Amino acid sequence: MNAELISVGTELLLGDITNTNTVYLSKELANIGINIFKHTTVGDNKERLLRTFDRAFNSSDTIIVTGGLGPTDDDITKECAAEYFGRDFYLDEYSWEKIKNYVTKYNKNNVLTNNNKKQALIPEGAIIVENFCGTAPGIILEDNGRRIILMPGPPREMKDMFIKSIKPYLQKLSNKKFISKYVRLYGIGESLLEDKIKHILDTQTNPTVALYAKTGEVLIRITASGDNEDFCNKIIDEKISEIKDIVGEYIYLVGDESISESQSELSSLVSKMLIEGNFKIAIAESLTGGLLTSQLVDNSGISSSLVEGLVCYSDDSKIKNLNISKDTLEKYTAVSEQVAYEMVNNLAKKNNVDFAISTTGYADGESAGLVYIGIYNRGNIYVKECQFTGDRNRIRDRVVKESLNEIRKIILL
Amino acid sequence: MNAELISVGTELLLGDITNTNTVYLSKELANIGINIFKHTTVGDNKERLLRTFDRAFNSSDTIIVTGGLGPTDDDITKECAAEYFGRDFYLDEYSWEKIKNYVTKYNKNNVLTNNNKKQALIPEGAIIVENFCGTAPGIILEDNGRRIILMPGPPREMKDMFIKSIKPYLQKLSNKKFISKYVRLYGIGESLLEDKIKHILDTQTNPTVALYAKTGEVLIRITASGDNEDFCNKIIDEKISEIKDIVGEYIYLVGDESISESQSELSSLVSKMLIEGNFKIAIAESLTGGLLTSQLVDNSGISSSLVEGLVCYSDDSKIKNLNISKDTLEKYTAVSEQVAYEMVNNLAKKNNVDFAISTTGYADGESAGLVYIGIYNRGNIYVKECQFTGDRNRIRDRVVKESLNEIRKIILL
Repeated sequence: MNAELISVGTELLLGDITNTNTVYLSKELANIGINIFKHTTVGDNKERLLRTFDRAFNSSDTIIVTGGLGPTDDDITKECAAEYFGRDFYLDEYSWEKIKNYVTKYNKNNVLTNNNKKQALIPEGAIIVENFCGTAPGIILEDNGRRIILMPGPPREMKDMFIKSIKPYLQKLSNKKFISKYVRLYGIGESLLEDKIKHILDTQTNPTVALYAKTGEVLIRITASGDNEDFCNKIIDEKISEIKDIVGEYIYLVGDESISESQSELSSLVSKMLIEGNFKIAIAESLTGGLLTSQLVDNSGISSSLVEGLVCYSDDSKIKNLNISKDTLEKYTAVSEQVAYEMVNNLAKKNNVDFAISTTGYADGESAGLVYIGIYNRGNIYVKECQFTGDRNRIRDRVVKESLNEIRKIILL
Repeated sequence: MNAELISVGTELLLGDITNTNTVYLSKELANIGINIFKHTTVGDNKERLLRTFDRAFNSSDTIIVTGGLGPTDDDITKECAAEYFGRDFYLDEYSWEKIKNYVTKYNKNNVLTNNNKKQALIPEGAIIVENFCGTAPGIILEDNGRRIILMPGPPREMKDMFIKSIKPYLQKLSNKKFISKYVRLYGIGESLLEDKIKHILDTQTNPTVALYAKTGEVLIRITASGDNEDFCNKIIDEKISEIKDIVGEYIYLVGDESISESQSELSSLVSKMLIEGNFKIAIAESLTGGLLTSQLVDNSGISSSLVEGLVCYSDDSKIKNLNISKDTLEKYTAVSEQVAYEMVNNLAKKNNVDFAISTTGYADGESAGLVYIGIYNRGNIYVKECQFTGDRNRIRDRVVKESLNEIRKIILL
């Protein structure tokens, strides 16, 4: 199946919003084996959208459109699709009831208008796709092996509709199953990883293997196709075990498509490990300024583990809160192995914890990226010296991940 | 001038990377009065790219292409543009020297290959545009009032080249000047703002006025066009003063195009105000878990102001670090006006500061969004009760912004 993605909305052409739907759908469709020939973004203009349909059907049998299903006169996607396949409209009572309830429930001061009714008008012969997050239903129009699929523009509505209805619909059209798994690695760069698993990358057919670099992390996507899920899972698991044999020490998570690709999973993983192990932790942050603690707090249930979080950004606060000796600060400066050691040592002493972490380093300036991380675990202390590159935010992000990874490694020991 | 943006790269069609170039260029071009008719993304396929040029020139006189200028065989953008206008290639010695230096300087193990030389091949009659951040030069090809502009795909290289060379080139083609200013507001919702300045929005011609909603913030963009900058600045300033008369109390920043549109400017503004006023601040965070402190630490120079940052996520840590009485915690619970008060009061007592902030609240669960912020300033304390909506992250983001805005308002008093 060949498909083209069309995004509709003058606000996209003006650069008022970033088009995140396209990257999401592209990845999802690639995962189920659908070739995307082109992405096109057009304004709210009937004639231009009709011409775009025409051109797209030259090379594709499936057009997937997002946006332009709203209640106002600007919203012309449904009208264009109906006109293109020569269909009339009828009022769908179920959709109309749903819209009426929605509008009166969420916008108490709103009165129903003819514009609202417009969203319940459906082209004849269309498959109506329920919108669980908003008012505009999705539409599938089929015509002699060609199809136009319309989804709402707001990403939350679109993604929910895609996962619940459109993806299963598309998968049914194909006899093949497509399954992906993700392997997340920390502590190895993309090019070194590429080098180490070069023979796997070079000889890949089914499953396919692709690398994606994130800040300090690499993600490997493994996608298999086959007649049934068991076969796909089997060949994926074989490939993962091959990869584990080579770089297993760097892998921190193997997961299905539900694990987030854009965000790191390290903080949620480590939070879970701390909570499940009933471990107590205390944190003293200098250059990270609260970032490490706040990433742990992102995860529900961490309050039972997180005993203390201190931000000691200035020398004064290091002295006052952690009793760091003035001598040490003067002799070695605040960014030193000695200060990282004293910070984590004194922090652990004043708290009855399993883990304590201290961070100190330079986020900018001449020595930017030089960082000391102090790690305490049941009586043992070590200080890790790191040299990170990049801007302020990237350096601090790396310190947070490095700290989380140290805790992870200790718990796994 | 009508233009079409074309992004080239199979990785975009696969959803491997998000296309951020398009939204950036769309906004920049809208700001200088260039109409964008369409965005198109195509793979690394010569025939399809040539067809896309053909179709684009039906409605536009200017095609702006990003991507496909790299050294490998996949990279076919320059070849397509040259073929489309019937130009041969020559080796540009200056570009070749630059590439040689660049490759040997940054990739010590790299050997120069014929692929590298490919990047120094220039279509005859082209304007060569210097790339200050990478190896591939930009290209402008003109042909009877039509033009194709080629820029590299990596956003850092593209943006630098656009600002330094392409934007001035495009501006020279037009006699008109376009200038934008941005007004940032906190504490007023988009719909209420729209309502209050409806007459301005409804009657706008020159300058144009557009609203953009962010989490808890609204951005107003005012764009003027005219024969000279003085005129543009004059009518923009008049419009801003009109807006100030209506909603001035919510405005926290008026700036030119250099202020970030995607990120909030509140934390950097408040950091600056604290540093410049030589104010000392201490922070105790419960539900925000270090996020407020880490946002302040994002800004260089804050160490002189930030005396103490505490994360008191559990009851125990509130008792131990801030001496909150068990009675208060039991009687009123941790999320209460009383606890927010005691937190900020005790924090201020133990530190000699101008400002102290405490946060406590529910990020999820039944009462999600109920938040108390304690604010201390030179002997005075008040507690602000807020009810925010959204998920965990959105709620905590709002608490951070609300806290920053309270500090801002006090300093301005």
